Amino acid sequence: MNSFGNIYRLTSFGESHGRAVGGVIDGMPPRKVIDLRQLQSQLDRRRPGRSPLTSARIEADRLQILSGVMGYDVLTGEAGPLTDECRHGITLGTPVGFMVENSDARSGDYEALRHVYRPSHADFTYDARYRIRDWRGGGRASGRETVSRVVAGAFAGQLLQEKGVAVSARICRVGGIDNPSAEELERVIMNARLDADSVGGVAECVITGLDAGVGEPVFGKLHQMLGSAMLSIGAVKGVEFGMGFEGVSHSGSEMADLFTVDEDGRIRTVTNNSGGIQGGISNGRDVVMRIAVKPTPTITREMPTVDDAGHQVTVNARGRHDPCILPRVLPVVEAMAAMTVLDAILMRNASEF
Amino acid sequence: MNSFGNIYRLTSFGESHGRAVGGVIDGMPPRKVIDLRQLQSQLDRRRPGRSPLTSARIEADRLQILSGVMGYDVLTGEAGPLTDECRHGITLGTPVGFMVENSDARSGDYEALRHVYRPSHADFTYDARYRIRDWRGGGRASGRETVSRVVAGAFAGQLLQEKGVAVSARICRVGGIDNPSAEELERVIMNARLDADSVGGVAECVITGLDAGVGEPVFGKLHQMLGSAMLSIGAVKGVEFGMGFEGVSHSGSEMADLFTVDEDGRIRTVTNNSGGIQGGISNGRDVVMRIAVKPTPTITREMPTVDDAGHQVTVNARGRHDPCILPRVLPVVEAMAAMTVLDAILMRNASEF
Amino acid sequence: MNSFGNIYRLTSFGESHGRAVGGVIDGMPPRKVIDLRQLQSQLDRRRPGRSPLTSARIEADRLQILSGVMGYDVLTGEAGPLTDECRHGITLGTPVGFMVENSDARSGDYEALRHVYRPSHADFTYDARYRIRDWRGGGRASGRETVSRVVAGAFAGQLLQEKGVAVSARICRVGGIDNPSAEELERVIMNARLDADSVGGVAECVITGLDAGVGEPVFGKLHQMLGSAMLSIGAVKGVEFGMGFEGVSHSGSEMADLFTVDEDGRIRTVTNNSGGIQGGISNGRDVVMRIAVKPTPTITREMPTVDDAGHQVTVNARGRHDPCILPRVLPVVEAMAAMTVLDAILMRNASEF
Amino acid sequence: MNSFGNIYRLTSFGESHGRAVGGVIDGMPPRKVIDLRQLQSQLDRRRPGRSPLTSARIEADRLQILSGVMGYDVLTGEAGPLTDECRHGITLGTPVGFMVENSDARSGDYEALRHVYRPSHADFTYDARYRIRDWRGGGRASGRETVSRVVAGAFAGQLLQEKGVAVSARICRVGGIDNPSAEELERVIMNARLDADSVGGVAECVITGLDAGVGEPVFGKLHQMLGSAMLSIGAVKGVEFGMGFEGVSHSGSEMADLFTVDEDGRIRTVTNNSGGIQGGISNGRDVVMRIAVKPTPTITREMPTVDDAGHQVTVNARGRHDPCILPRVLPVVEAMAAMTVLDAILMRNASEF
Repeated sequence: MNSFGNIYRLTSFGESHGRAVGGVIDGMPPRKVIDLRQLQSQLDRRRPGRSPLTSARIEADRLQILSGVMGYDVLTGEAGPLTDECRHGITLGTPVGFMVENSDARSGDYEALRHVYRPSHADFTYDARYRIRDWRGGGRASGRETVSRVVAGAFAGQLLQEKGVAVSARICRVGGIDNPSAEELERVIMNARLDADSVGGVAECVITGLDAGVGEPVFGKLHQMLGSAMLSIGAVKGVEFGMGFEGVSHSGSEMADLFTVDEDGRIRTVTNNSGGIQGGISNGRDVVMRIAVKPTPTITREMPTVDDAGHQVTVNARGRHDPCILPRVLPVVEAMAAMTVLDAILMRNASEF
Repeated sequence: MNSFGNIYRLTSFGESHGRAVGGVIDGMPPRKVIDLRQLQSQLDRRRPGRSPLTSARIEADRLQILSGVMGYDVLTGEAGPLTDECRHGITLGTPVGFMVENSDARSGDYEALRHVYRPSHADFTYDARYRIRDWRGGGRASGRETVSRVVAGAFAGQLLQEKGVAVSARICRVGGIDNPSAEELERVIMNARLDADSVGGVAECVITGLDAGVGEPVFGKLHQMLGSAMLSIGAVKGVEFGMGFEGVSHSGSEMADLFTVDEDGRIRTVTNNSGGIQGGISNGRDVVMRIAVKPTPTITREMPTVDDAGHQVTVNARGRHDPCILPRVLPVVEAMAAMTVLDAILMRNASEF
Repeated sequence: MNSFGNIYRLTSFGESHGRAVGGVIDGMPPRKVIDLRQLQSQLDRRRPGRSPLTSARIEADRLQILSGVMGYDVLTGEAGPLTDECRHGITLGTPVGFMVENSDARSGDYEALRHVYRPSHADFTYDARYRIRDWRGGGRASGRETVSRVVAGAFAGQLLQEKGVAVSARICRVGGIDNPSAEELERVIMNARLDADSVGGVAECVITGLDAGVGEPVFGKLHQMLGSAMLSIGAVKGVEFGMGFEGVSHSGSEMADLFTVDEDGRIRTVTNNSGGIQGGISNGRDVVMRIAVKPTPTITREMPTVDDAGHQVTVNARGRHDPCILPRVLPVVEAMAAMTVLDAILMRNASEF
Repeated sequence: MNSFGNIYRLTSFGESHGRAVGGVIDGMPPRKVIDLRQLQSQLDRRRPGRSPLTSARIEADRLQILSGVMGYDVLTGEAGPLTDECRHGITLGTPVGFMVENSDARSGDYEALRHVYRPSHADFTYDARYRIRDWRGGGRASGRETVSRVVAGAFAGQLLQEKGVAVSARICRVGGIDNPSAEELERVIMNARLDADSVGGVAECVITGLDAGVGEPVFGKLHQMLGSAMLSIGAVKGVEFGMGFEGVSHSGSEMADLFTVDEDGRIRTVTNNSGGIQGGISNGRDVVMRIAVKPTPTITREMPTVDDAGHQVTVNARGRHDPCILPRVLPVVEAMAAMTVLDAILMRNASEF
């Protein structure tokens, strides 16, 4: 169950302190010209160590594409070997294998955690599930796993952009503060760091430019697939669409998205309480969703817990940790949304005969 | 995309006013004794026309099992033909085909809606997706489609019960009122009906008795699968787990579920802010989720809209409609949760070798 | 594992002597006009009791479409309720549920077989797999299960026909005789019946009109999917493509399908030793495969065997049985091939973006 | 469509002259001790350049495991980092990512083939499918793609061995000669090389030690899955089980596998004409299949063909090529069979509840 998507399908692998994280993208449409530097810059967005707000772990996180893409010269239109010098690649329609090596993995830091269950982490549940786990840096449950998502999502985003579809996420709540400015956001996070604590928040993701008619009814609803995508991200504890949880307190007459015909003769809704989706299918308006991101469970103060023998111990996550994961979650949210939307479009294409 | 689940897998079919709704359950474990009357009683719970709170459409909704189950005599332990007189059945491990006929389908009522797009309904988006739709009673987008879920969920629930796992849902908010009593609930819904309007609300679903270690990491997280299950239900606009959206305003130190060892020597968390799941895997505590259910878009007052030629028209849903869908959503929520949990347990079994 | 296909996907259900056999077709393209009588006539082809060559079991085998299709008037282009009078239907893009009732199931005939393992039948292996089985008429392992395939294949065949793709199967060997005439075929089968024995043979299936470029490399090869389709049919013990097993005795230079350019400027092969497929992808030539069908294991003479308690017993399949299953296998072969090819075309469409 | 298997599932990637070939194995059971050197030695078996009988291409083909396995000390039972010095690894239950770099890729050799369609190769059909292809060394259609299969199959083989299940393949026909001795085999292949030609043959694969009751009926039949596995291998044009194509000329009474009870009280068949499978489920006897392998299409003589502009050209595969692929196909056949059987066992486990 390490695959996501039906046609455009990412299969992910990797532990935080294994040799590499990466994945395989199957169902990649052929003959798509890819800006390779943009892939890398998306990866850089999720990388830790870029600002005082995030973890100090420094990794080059250099994307290595292993297959499915040849180098491409946009001037001549010629394909050739894919080298580090290539600015562009072209997809072959074959699976895209890729990886990012784990170069800066200080596994020694984690030796003390070998038998300890950190509160609100997955240490205990992985042991319950597999009766073995890689204790180093969270193993498979580490946020580092999102590398493969960001890569597959960046490819998807470039393909969607061709069709005028864009995905963007922003922080709309942090700690208890709605619509924080960049300064407020920084202040809240720095305060959490000083308190040796952490904060959560809410991200909003908007998909623009999507035609009406994308999504499958019943068990492949567009918002179901998007919700599944979002809830697969480590710290996400909730997801809502359009008016979401707040909308339930309104009456049906208030919430109805009335139809009109716009100047181009297209049918569209006047309001967008539904968040761009009705009956699981896009209606041509922006798709709008919000995601609840819990405060990071790793905090730099001493906490009581138990080890795998059931003994009471204390744990103190000295290492390199984010007091707020939200800024680094945004590219992951965008990536998962892009993959989901691209897959839904390909599914629609599949039924055209 | 009309299938749900990996091992225990429901494939659903049916339009509201076609001949029947039903489905096929693949991956049914063999040799399970099934109380057939309980299946029917679960179906009855979702049926309209049972109280003044729900739609007046009366249907027998008699479950017909077409395959995969033989009749079973619990006294003798003998299997035989499955007849209407059988109280119990026994599963064969082969796919369970079933259907419920659409006996009371007054299609004529819907002729006026043949070309009309009802606000916040799926009429327009189905046309955008398929360029054809069954306009009668919502067609495939009708709540009647949930019949197949309730049946597959009722089977799943009986299997889970054997292992001590129970799923139950309740209304925890309606209109703007939290924790409404039965009387308040009735009053709010009746008021909505008198106002020719509708109300939404929030349902909470709790899964008890689930061992630690159920769920798959990364793209098969237990709460991801549950969230996907919930968001596949017609009117659901959001889902959250444990402290959910509220939890994001708390600090990491407040939200940490500290571990302890209980009197039986088992490791468990003191609090349950995580809602019974960490890293996508159950931790042995109750799994807790809440679902936002929008107010029914069908209301019995005149509303402006457009038809499929883009003309302004009005629509008035005279027919038989629920001013609040929440009471009838509960068995669907329970059914989807039961299917999801059973499937996750079977997935875990699959990796035992 | 009762589903076949990726996009165009049949999920099948039914035991021979349960209430019904049937299935659900997901991924049906919308707005396809279907000749409903042709569906029924395909079903009639696989029905027993039509000639002295086949089993005497008489069943109406009347197809009941439960969903996914509305009635269609080809003159007016109007859709409406699907009734028994409709000659044509139109697909909605939603899943097509269908069934055929088991009307003539003389279960009593099988009571003697309740605990007996018939040689070369699936009685023993089903018990080994599930530790329960429906002993009546072969249960799920009965050839009656192919009803659902023929229906799903007949839909697929009509869609393919629109694109000029045709699938047809013929008997090319029976008993030891190659290319038997209709008279020889009848004689061989009648002789087997008189001998209280049975014969097998080889069927050849040819797919014409298929463009180059259909099929997926590596694990979705066109001939792999076709081979899987064929081997899923009850009595099939082998499958080969193009020159198949005989081709291995030739040299590479003899077997090479040289390319040429035809009068229309299209690249094509001069010979077709490859059977229309290279690297798992169609090359524009006829796809040619042959299927080995074993002699029916049910023969009308006394045979020694064991029962489920390990006692030596004898079995004599008095009932209604085919001395040669080949004539009735042909429509199943065509159906499975049609489904496979349609699915492969839809897969190709999915990657067009 | 680059994945194989349901639970134990390989997703493969890689072109012959890209950076690497490899894959991800999902569904790996946890806590399995793996002999890492045996994995490498299986890879070495399929490697070219090892004998005068095979291609001269020399590649180290060193397996790099990227995730899902930790190093394991069989003496202490301790897990640790996976390094090149580790003799053993232990599985984590998480996906096993792996790759083999393409170190000896002389792409320049293939420049002349950039626009040329080699007869009976996949050059033309890949272009028809994707309208782009990596022309170097066969690209994705190269036999080098089987590296990922051999790795995933070697893991599977080690797990099966634990349960007493073994898979082995041998050459039973080459050119026109049945049961060739090693000397005959060498002679036939050398003759083909001297003739600048190639030969095909038949491999037989036998699976021993498999319990009765493995396999799924209808669309997941054990021999269907094995057949699909075999037909996914590049040069395979046919597959048969038990008596296969020859069996069709026998009568039902001759072919019946009569049951008996062995000295251990277990029910088994006296003969094994069915090849160990009835109704798609293993019966406890050896599973026996044969695979038709076509003569290599790449031969070292000048042949006429066309290029992608439709011009007549000649092609002469000077490079490094096998006059007979059979010896190198054997480990691939074993690998695919091992993966298939392991997957089928895990599927059976999944339904135990």
